[in-house]
Amino acid sequence: MVTSLAGRAESRTQAKILGLLRDEGPLSRAELADRLVVSRTTVAAETARLAELGLVSDAGPAASRGGRRSTLVDLGSGLRFAGIDIGATSVNVAITDGRLTVLSRASEEIDVKVGPERVLALALELTRKLAARQEVAKLAGAGIGVPGPVDFNGGLPVSPPIMPGWDGYPVRDTMARELGCPVLLDNDVNLMAMGEQHAGVAKTAPGFLFVKIGTGIGCGIVIDGQLYRGVDGCAGDIGHMRVEDFGPICACGNTGCLEAFFSGSALARDAMSAARGGRSPVLEERLREQGTLTAEDVGIAAAHGDPQAIQMVRDGGRRIGQVLAGLVSFFNPGLIVIGGRVAMLGHLLLAEIRGGVYRRSLPLATSNLPVVLSELGEEAGVIGAARLISDVLYAVR
Amino acid sequence: MVTSLAGRAESRTQAKILGLLRDEGPLSRAELADRLVVSRTTVAAETARLAELGLVSDAGPAASRGGRRSTLVDLGSGLRFAGIDIGATSVNVAITDGRLTVLSRASEEIDVKVGPERVLALALELTRKLAARQEVAKLAGAGIGVPGPVDFNGGLPVSPPIMPGWDGYPVRDTMARELGCPVLLDNDVNLMAMGEQHAGVAKTAPGFLFVKIGTGIGCGIVIDGQLYRGVDGCAGDIGHMRVEDFGPICACGNTGCLEAFFSGSALARDAMSAARGGRSPVLEERLREQGTLTAEDVGIAAAHGDPQAIQMVRDGGRRIGQVLAGLVSFFNPGLIVIGGRVAMLGHLLLAEIRGGVYRRSLPLATSNLPVVLSELGEEAGVIGAARLISDVLYAVR
Repeated sequence: MVTSLAGRAESRTQAKILGLLRDEGPLSRAELADRLVVSRTTVAAETARLAELGLVSDAGPAASRGGRRSTLVDLGSGLRFAGIDIGATSVNVAITDGRLTVLSRASEEIDVKVGPERVLALALELTRKLAARQEVAKLAGAGIGVPGPVDFNGGLPVSPPIMPGWDGYPVRDTMARELGCPVLLDNDVNLMAMGEQHAGVAKTAPGFLFVKIGTGIGCGIVIDGQLYRGVDGCAGDIGHMRVEDFGPICACGNTGCLEAFFSGSALARDAMSAARGGRSPVLEERLREQGTLTAEDVGIAAAHGDPQAIQMVRDGGRRIGQVLAGLVSFFNPGLIVIGGRVAMLGHLLLAEIRGGVYRRSLPLATSNLPVVLSELGEEAGVIGAARLISDVLYAVR
Repeated sequence: MVTSLAGRAESRTQAKILGLLRDEGPLSRAELADRLVVSRTTVAAETARLAELGLVSDAGPAASRGGRRSTLVDLGSGLRFAGIDIGATSVNVAITDGRLTVLSRASEEIDVKVGPERVLALALELTRKLAARQEVAKLAGAGIGVPGPVDFNGGLPVSPPIMPGWDGYPVRDTMARELGCPVLLDNDVNLMAMGEQHAGVAKTAPGFLFVKIGTGIGCGIVIDGQLYRGVDGCAGDIGHMRVEDFGPICACGNTGCLEAFFSGSALARDAMSAARGGRSPVLEERLREQGTLTAEDVGIAAAHGDPQAIQMVRDGGRRIGQVLAGLVSFFNPGLIVIGGRVAMLGHLLLAEIRGGVYRRSLPLATSNLPVVLSELGEEAGVIGAARLISDVLYAVR
């Protein structure tokens, strides 16, 4: 089947119909009229037009509500979004349907430091390959995440510390031109938070914090179901919060930053040092075999009961917990989700984080506060990216 | 003149007219119609009704817009609100007009620890005395602030650490019954933030943090012109954020909390210790004269060039700056206002706070970030309290 998606919603009512169908699945015209507080005649006219545009289609008979049996309306089966998650060391792409279910995914390693031309070329190549495999003639839209601060309205990265060459590069507009569809750009952590809200553990949480522990550390802030970006769009930059007066020098030039103590790169550094210093037999052996060590090796060594590796995870969890305890006192969130590749260290890490949060925050703020691991893992970013663009096209925000 | 205020706004349009008149002063009916996007006929009918209720009155001819000259509408000259700010050691009350200009104020010292009955009796006495002096027959509404966490919807304090006997006490409903008008209860710091937004330095800031340094330390969070209270209503509790692993034991039972190092009570404690230990001749003399010392004495000693007192202020400012730097990274606010009694230590304190914030936060987040002292000082709380209740009666929120 070749998807030929002619149009986009032409009115706010049309967009709102699409939004309801995305989040709740097929609905009858009567239900749509009730939910949107408009007449059934309006719904009939608007869904007819959406069907012409290929954006909705009929989906069998609805359950009877008395009277004439009506037909369910569903999102057009040809609606396709792309979610593109550019990380520090890889590009992840997914094609989703209109309800943001991932249909296919591809990822490839690349260092974001090689600059925007090469990274975006790879992102385009992966997207086009997936679209061709799925026989998508035209994408409805694409969301893109990058690992650094973003000027959301301008669609470009702003002084991103780990992305040399990307400062001010018109990522959104370049990709929109290449893909021929609407594109939005955001910080990768914000997108992971949106992904977790759409399809993960934060589905029913109106307000929560999503903490990504990857190469660096960042935080997505959701208030009343919406991302909070701060006045300059750089809210959530918790990797550079101070945990000690002294400590390893951070990429930002300061000492004592959280992510200089605990993050993917900090763990790799400490693992190398432990292996070379003979303090961890397991890491020493893995270094001999692989030539290098990453945060994952620390997780494997900890799972093997290596005391040094376990200590690294616990120290890191304690420091994350300490910072989060402060944020709980300040922000009083309803849920904290821990994600990112380093979060895959799992329950040993989570236990330390929880200990720190519950020990230090105001009792009132923690009495109903779950601190949990991400449910979506690597998919959080691409689902969030698709959600970002669909929110706009469906006028959910 | 005896104010006899018969009624309240009966429709959303009426309330919105009152809100516009509060924030912008007298407007013509034509301007009101434009601003509210309703017909002039509607405005004429609604203002006529509001005039009958004593809520608006005519205020002379408007500037000509061509055609027949229209008359300005102003808030009724008899509209009166009460703002009641209950602090740790005093009760402050103000009577304001409809535009929240303070007409008269009274305050009296009382320890909040003596419990709700006695403190609220004093608050009522002061309010009634002021109302009698101003010949107010009936208040349009009253806002009340208390120095602890508040269940805003329930109108009562929740486990307030420095307010024994107040936990769960129905402050809002008790006061509404006694005053015979609508009452709302909030945390004192939130009200100071609203006051600063209404009449102070944050007037044009859509989002900002208000940091109160008083007996304890707290923070009001304003996002898009609205208070952010957190899921349990206890957001902004920054006094218990950790600044060191060890340190003086805090009222909350932990060590290393910000307010155990620097706050009104911490400064008083350190001043006593410096005076008794012979480390500060100025404080020693003041202790001999007064029998005790407060944070104000530290300010006076610092102004006299006492090195020990200056050091106390600088250490405190540095720690506040350190905590705020973290919050700037997390929250990316557009403005930080420093208020509360200890903030009156002034520019020596402010310089240290700024140093900490600008040194440690992400450059993007601080490039346009003013850190300033409160403009309203002691009036912030009572103006904010009046604003809280008027926002609801005027349907501004």
